[in-house]
Amino acid sequence: MTAPEAYIASIGTSLPGEPVDNEQLAKALGVNQEWVEVFIGTRTRHFARDIGTNEVRWSLADLCAQAGEKAIANAGIDPAQIDFIVLGTATPDTLMPATVNHVADQLGLDQLPTYQLQSGCAGAVQAFDLARTLVTSTGGTGLVIGGDVCSKHLDLRRDLTDAAPSELVNFVLFGDGAGAAVLTPEPIGQRVALRRVLNRLTGLGRAPGQVIEWFGVADRDSDKQAIKEDYKAIEEAVPVMAVEILWELLGELDWSVEELDYILPPQLSGRMTSLIYDRLDVPGVREISCVADTGNNGNALPFLQTERLLAEMTTGQKALAVAIESSKWIKAGFALEKI
Amino acid sequence: MTAPEAYIASIGTSLPGEPVDNEQLAKALGVNQEWVEVFIGTRTRHFARDIGTNEVRWSLADLCAQAGEKAIANAGIDPAQIDFIVLGTATPDTLMPATVNHVADQLGLDQLPTYQLQSGCAGAVQAFDLARTLVTSTGGTGLVIGGDVCSKHLDLRRDLTDAAPSELVNFVLFGDGAGAAVLTPEPIGQRVALRRVLNRLTGLGRAPGQVIEWFGVADRDSDKQAIKEDYKAIEEAVPVMAVEILWELLGELDWSVEELDYILPPQLSGRMTSLIYDRLDVPGVREISCVADTGNNGNALPFLQTERLLAEMTTGQKALAVAIESSKWIKAGFALEKI
Repeated sequence: MTAPEAYIASIGTSLPGEPVDNEQLAKALGVNQEWVEVFIGTRTRHFARDIGTNEVRWSLADLCAQAGEKAIANAGIDPAQIDFIVLGTATPDTLMPATVNHVADQLGLDQLPTYQLQSGCAGAVQAFDLARTLVTSTGGTGLVIGGDVCSKHLDLRRDLTDAAPSELVNFVLFGDGAGAAVLTPEPIGQRVALRRVLNRLTGLGRAPGQVIEWFGVADRDSDKQAIKEDYKAIEEAVPVMAVEILWELLGELDWSVEELDYILPPQLSGRMTSLIYDRLDVPGVREISCVADTGNNGNALPFLQTERLLAEMTTGQKALAVAIESSKWIKAGFALEKI
Repeated sequence: MTAPEAYIASIGTSLPGEPVDNEQLAKALGVNQEWVEVFIGTRTRHFARDIGTNEVRWSLADLCAQAGEKAIANAGIDPAQIDFIVLGTATPDTLMPATVNHVADQLGLDQLPTYQLQSGCAGAVQAFDLARTLVTSTGGTGLVIGGDVCSKHLDLRRDLTDAAPSELVNFVLFGDGAGAAVLTPEPIGQRVALRRVLNRLTGLGRAPGQVIEWFGVADRDSDKQAIKEDYKAIEEAVPVMAVEILWELLGELDWSVEELDYILPPQLSGRMTSLIYDRLDVPGVREISCVADTGNNGNALPFLQTERLLAEMTTGQKALAVAIESSKWIKAGFALEKI
């Protein structure tokens, strides 16, 4: 008897509206376009609010439901075959209800367990981790979703001409979006086996590399900065951790680097992702990235990368995804093999 | 071969500071003491901020770590034996890092997976649900935590003399606190088998009964009410759902109501919980409640109830817990048997 496995049957993604390029962004926010291109290396991103009018056009639930609907359609299954939903996000629409339940509502799903993981860049991997455990232990079919919408923290009406770089960077680094996958106990659709998931906190005694606050009634007039990053710590730690994750996963899988066809590196920004890929030093392994086009949309990224991967992957090929959550330093990743 | 099970080895809880009674609350907030006593039926609650000075004295991470530390000590295990942590909360300290990772830090735990479920009154049950799946599928030992701190949404400096009842009620209904359990694959410590967990969304097409907002930089000056409840919908739906959950769990377990020794009913408020217990109509089954003393502290409640239960439960006795999340109408519950 072999151990039960879980399989990705399909992916669906949702990016709000038209891509916003650096020229548009520079004009709207009063930031330097060249600075964005050189230091961030991201060409376009999507926002859930209109950059001209500042109107919120999509909630996180909207984007997640769109991605979920596409994933279900792409798997060729009936929505009623979904036995559970797992959503990973750092930016829920409200604290309650959990956004996953509004997603279920939009998809017409009911009478099933739903889970929403509060998580950052490792969240999509945590969602895969949890969903894989549920699929293999219950034999059910799961809808796994990841998404983030930063519109509550990005006031696009602001003139940022005099803003500090540490604040400015959030406007040019991030984007909004969602992705979803149907996970099944038997190979159907894309027939991609989820061979392994790594999800491990490695933050003991380390200061957070990223903090995202929320404000309540009692502290809404506080002058706390909403999004803070320790870029120095991130730039130092993430490439090293990425190499460690790559080799740890290969070791656990008993795969040689020569067997590996694709690598999905961490998607911080166009520039950082290039640096990390170079540092991984796996020249024969094809890089699958999306951040230069999509912006850093957090929990959506691994789904966007996997969608690009599946367009290329052929039977017998192997891929590794590496993700790092710099908030409290979580090592994450997963291994895929098309059967 | 019997199916693997999970066991509660111990419980630990943490309530911040001294209990705040209705007289103190009435004096501090300018509310009517008799109204609190008659319509809410809650005698005391605990707050993570000082009711006199408004100073925040404990974070959610602080309370969860205290509860976790006690649970680990009560189980008689070494912290290093914990293989994973699951935390359920509606009120994380920050959006990132997830609070569970700060809890791990305070407990000295590292190199393990952590999960934080965004959830309300069903969250502790969801955390047990997830932890039970992890224990039975991996054979590991888990720390399950639930807690809530409403201090970001309760400005205790406010004079509420003229506040609308719908706003006022949040100040008198809620409290802060955390609870934790050690879940093991073999019976140790308290030797209480977690026989079943129910966790099912039943919200299709229904308006939320409770909404808790968070504010960002872009909407912090909005006049949205931070906590909204549809008390009419809650008072109508929750007692009916509680009866349904009781009988569904009994049916699935093949337990007769005569076999049942204890019931842990939903803990909305002292008054609502009394009404629900009466409605359950199980006069021979002993009620285990805490809300009149602790206030509604959300994800902490099932742990506080289970702690009271374990002080009484003897070998062979059976208990059912019923929880309902009115935000998007989640039916939840679990079954315990001391072996």
